[in-house]
Amino acid sequence: MAVVAGPRVTFEPDGRVLVATAGQTLLDATFAAGVPLDSVCGGRGICERCRVVVTHGEVEADDARGGRVGGEVLACLTRIVGDVSIEIPEASRIEGEQILTGMERWDQLLSTPEDVDVAHLPREVSSAAERFADGPLAFALPLDLPPPTLEDCLSDAQRVARELQRQHGLRDVSVPVEVLRAAPVALREAGWNVSAVLARTSVGHELIDIRPGGGPTRAFGVAVDIGTTTVVAHLVDLANGQTLGAAAAVNRQVRFGDDVISRIIHAGEPGGLDQLRTAIVGEINVLVGSLARGHDIERDEIVAVACAGNTTMIHLFLGLPPAEIRREPYIPVATAPPTCHASQVGLRIHPRATVAVMPGVSGWVGGDITADVVACGMDRTPELSMLIDVGTNGETVIGNRDFLVCCACSAGPAFEGGGISAGMRAAGGAIQRVQITQAGALTYETVGSVKPRGICGSGLVDLLAELLRAGYMDRAGRLQPEAPIVRGGPAGPEVLVAAAESTGIGRDITLGGADIENLLRAKGAVYAGAALLARRIGVSMSDIERIYVAGGFGAYLDIRKAMLIGLLPEVPLERVTFIGNGSVAGAKMGLLAKGTRRRAIEVARKMTYRELSVDPGFMEEYVSAMFFPHTDAARFPRACAELGFS
Amino acid sequence: MAVVAGPRVTFEPDGRVLVATAGQTLLDATFAAGVPLDSVCGGRGICERCRVVVTHGEVEADDARGGRVGGEVLACLTRIVGDVSIEIPEASRIEGEQILTGMERWDQLLSTPEDVDVAHLPREVSSAAERFADGPLAFALPLDLPPPTLEDCLSDAQRVARELQRQHGLRDVSVPVEVLRAAPVALREAGWNVSAVLARTSVGHELIDIRPGGGPTRAFGVAVDIGTTTVVAHLVDLANGQTLGAAAAVNRQVRFGDDVISRIIHAGEPGGLDQLRTAIVGEINVLVGSLARGHDIERDEIVAVACAGNTTMIHLFLGLPPAEIRREPYIPVATAPPTCHASQVGLRIHPRATVAVMPGVSGWVGGDITADVVACGMDRTPELSMLIDVGTNGETVIGNRDFLVCCACSAGPAFEGGGISAGMRAAGGAIQRVQITQAGALTYETVGSVKPRGICGSGLVDLLAELLRAGYMDRAGRLQPEAPIVRGGPAGPEVLVAAAESTGIGRDITLGGADIENLLRAKGAVYAGAALLARRIGVSMSDIERIYVAGGFGAYLDIRKAMLIGLLPEVPLERVTFIGNGSVAGAKMGLLAKGTRRRAIEVARKMTYRELSVDPGFMEEYVSAMFFPHTDAARFPRACAELGFS
Repeated sequence: MAVVAGPRVTFEPDGRVLVATAGQTLLDATFAAGVPLDSVCGGRGICERCRVVVTHGEVEADDARGGRVGGEVLACLTRIVGDVSIEIPEASRIEGEQILTGMERWDQLLSTPEDVDVAHLPREVSSAAERFADGPLAFALPLDLPPPTLEDCLSDAQRVARELQRQHGLRDVSVPVEVLRAAPVALREAGWNVSAVLARTSVGHELIDIRPGGGPTRAFGVAVDIGTTTVVAHLVDLANGQTLGAAAAVNRQVRFGDDVISRIIHAGEPGGLDQLRTAIVGEINVLVGSLARGHDIERDEIVAVACAGNTTMIHLFLGLPPAEIRREPYIPVATAPPTCHASQVGLRIHPRATVAVMPGVSGWVGGDITADVVACGMDRTPELSMLIDVGTNGETVIGNRDFLVCCACSAGPAFEGGGISAGMRAAGGAIQRVQITQAGALTYETVGSVKPRGICGSGLVDLLAELLRAGYMDRAGRLQPEAPIVRGGPAGPEVLVAAAESTGIGRDITLGGADIENLLRAKGAVYAGAALLARRIGVSMSDIERIYVAGGFGAYLDIRKAMLIGLLPEVPLERVTFIGNGSVAGAKMGLLAKGTRRRAIEVARKMTYRELSVDPGFMEEYVSAMFFPHTDAARFPRACAELGFS
Repeated sequence: MAVVAGPRVTFEPDGRVLVATAGQTLLDATFAAGVPLDSVCGGRGICERCRVVVTHGEVEADDARGGRVGGEVLACLTRIVGDVSIEIPEASRIEGEQILTGMERWDQLLSTPEDVDVAHLPREVSSAAERFADGPLAFALPLDLPPPTLEDCLSDAQRVARELQRQHGLRDVSVPVEVLRAAPVALREAGWNVSAVLARTSVGHELIDIRPGGGPTRAFGVAVDIGTTTVVAHLVDLANGQTLGAAAAVNRQVRFGDDVISRIIHAGEPGGLDQLRTAIVGEINVLVGSLARGHDIERDEIVAVACAGNTTMIHLFLGLPPAEIRREPYIPVATAPPTCHASQVGLRIHPRATVAVMPGVSGWVGGDITADVVACGMDRTPELSMLIDVGTNGETVIGNRDFLVCCACSAGPAFEGGGISAGMRAAGGAIQRVQITQAGALTYETVGSVKPRGICGSGLVDLLAELLRAGYMDRAGRLQPEAPIVRGGPAGPEVLVAAAESTGIGRDITLGGADIENLLRAKGAVYAGAALLARRIGVSMSDIERIYVAGGFGAYLDIRKAMLIGLLPEVPLERVTFIGNGSVAGAKMGLLAKGTRRRAIEVARKMTYRELSVDPGFMEEYVSAMFFPHTDAARFPRACAELGFS
């Protein structure tokens, strides 16, 4: 039998080899091999993230430019002809990125109930014990069974059911046949002293496993925020509600496009949906696997998962075709999909682990927003609150315990580092704070205090605000060519944030006009959505008693500077709470608290969606917001005063 | 690459070839290849059913006898050395056997409500329409959905749920993620005019499929009796409760042993449980496949299955380890296993078809008996009734609407044709009625009026009764050597039932002393169980107002003759109703009627099991029953008078 073998791609320096198909791009080949090459533009040669060095071998450029950037080629525009060896520069790797997970910020909030910010969070959030008592999605119970006798000769199934009722008051426990298949041996090998692992269902409980008892009962869960750009997972001990660790990674789907629309389009191509589904499921499996290893936990001990994400991400995760979400009348398959078993979705944890998703509102307002709302608790307080989630899709919610109204707008991934030449997620080496000294020098802090590799959201907010404040950038976002840190670049003036020799990537880190344009559009869209929603429901910004800000900026966001650039509406600073990744926080609450899951359903049910993309006022608001901080100085009096704008 | 190839086994005359392993028995090789060779002794060389002709090639005999019977070898005792060609004589084939399914009898009962027998059946049984109205396990409903608009923009899942409630009053419909994955395309391709296929769950309904609508809504179900020896399946139209057809086959597990105990032992061997599980599941798949083809039904249109069987058969079908059933204190994994999806058990019908099993009482009284009880309706009437199920395991139930008590005893498969040299199931060519004329000649009728191939249960009952009546056999079962149809055989006197030239198998059909001994033991065990159970609960046979007889005798059973040989207790003839295969009838009622499923659970709950095998009275009753009709003539006055016994 002849084996059809394609050209070989050797990865330097480790010598790993994969067999590719002639004509395949280097990006496709590396992706197929699971090599984590950065790419956020869908392989169109735009983001220039996937630079690799071809050390030898035959390749073919895919376009006139030859796909060349310096001595490197773009993997997406380079086709394999014969055997090749390549090297992936550090800057192109996404492997090992320590993306900030929001856990630091959130656990800080949770652990400091006297904190000013936390005072505004509902009590439920502030007590892990209380949250847990309310009922996690799954849990383990000790069960010491009397061995059967001729007099007490119930079947194994009936005996377990009887003792669950006698010892724990549980009725209505369904037992899947797979558990029964293993039950007789499990019960007898354990000497009838076992742990019953149970999942809560909408109508009772399901026995998902019987494990040997005798020690402390272990059961773990994972909360996942499935972002368009970033995936964050928290590992939780279901026995006490404690968060053991967190991990984050780039959503591997970014190689099929960096926004929701391009993912939906790709899902409509043959095999596309399955590619997207396995990409995200695979990424979650990697995160969960590394969390489990790091805490000496078997995958089978992870018995519950709660996910939050926008409606499209949830569709792709569950394998639901998202095509109709972008076609009028914009109908998702489901906004509150059913709870599944892990095996139904391909998660490599306990096969019968229960997988729940936070319910969403519509195709454009997903369970991530519901999660934000329950996490910040605006649905339970009388005060009029606004939630702004700055993500690839920007969402705003206004309301209180009596009503909730929301809108969404496509902001792009700029504040998560997408579409920005030096942008990156809030991972190790990301510039997260920036200052321009009176002497005109630029100083920064990086995540992990290592050499800078790029700029994350909070750093971009800081940088824009500092450029404005120093007068190096005007209201329209134009850089002043004569400013000390501004230099002439290939595409016009650019800010030199860090010179090549001081960075961890061997290249200058800069911010150019196109980057600023992208950030201006992103902040404009976010602000326009929030402002128009308030206007449409007849609320002025001064009526809003509290603003919660969620998003993947990093652990840190300078609220004052976010107002200075007009990303956030100007209200008294003490009214604003940055909740970080509210999506994973809400998902975690859903994982742990039955009450939260009920609240999330109630929030999704009562939240009214306003379709602002068809509102003629939107373009007007958006265009007005395309200045720093805004064309209407009256809306940002404090910022304009500070900046000297009138 | 080298291919390791074993010796080739060629089947004559069709030339089919399989690759075997050297040293494998011919039986194992044919079985592995799915060739339906008869065998009921577990490959121990006892039943002598697996005779094949080796036309050429190398084989090796497995024992001193050389496994030779005439010019044939026993496949189970013959090991493959090199390439061989074999021929399977017609008598050794089980392929194509048209085993009677009990449908004729049962449907006759159902269709003739004025029949005397049926008068004693509960009304529910007599009306298919009524049974159906009570709620089948699964059903299809037409659903004409308003297409979504910007104003009516519910998700597909919510739209379906809303319309199921609006149009059919159904709430609490759960939708598995697999259905959601297909929903958007299914709904739109059908122009929003669909059929919703729903299964009833313990707490509501599950949407198992969405199909294009526009025509009559099709949904079918299958009722299955999983007998130790025979498997019977009825195909039912769930839209109207009508039985479309029936099929039966030998339970392929017989090659691992002909009784429950030897199956349990085999299940304990490495891989044994899975062999047994796939054998029975495979057999049901074959039956269902042929029924579906015969009625132009797609496998996917079969959306519900109800099974009845003894506890061990149900364990093996579901893959539950049965080992503890035969170890004190005799604990099954479950007596009322949960409803599954077809995909969980390996049935090749709609993957989400609902598969329910009739609940049983204990390891030794299974859902087949519960099915018998609900089928005959003894649980609903005030009259004191007895049910006797003559199967490989013989069960007796005594009771009425107020109480039910049951026992079980191992009777062996004699009345299903097992362990009888010329025995066979009630299939085409089976001698089902026998008479001995005054002139001493033996006449018979066969199933299908074709040349005889063996004798089935009803024929064996007839034959024994006629031998007794004619005086050719004494009370102890000894044949009179001088009787006209008795001749000397290799193992003593034997009855020549049909001479080789008049049969369809080219061999004499005879009944010898060992056969009679097996039948005597079987009838003795059945009667002893019934008699002792009555005694233990203080009931005399004359108190019993009705006896229902179930079993795989065939379509026909001569009650009078069954009493003459002492198989059934002697009561006035009009008190006895032969219900045939009550197990498949009860399963079918369970398939169609929610009320029956509730009744079956209630019956299983209230039925008390008496363990008679440990009762010292059992051996006493059994030994007394080891005569025709019985040692105690007072119990069979009518029979003894007719036979001239005192």
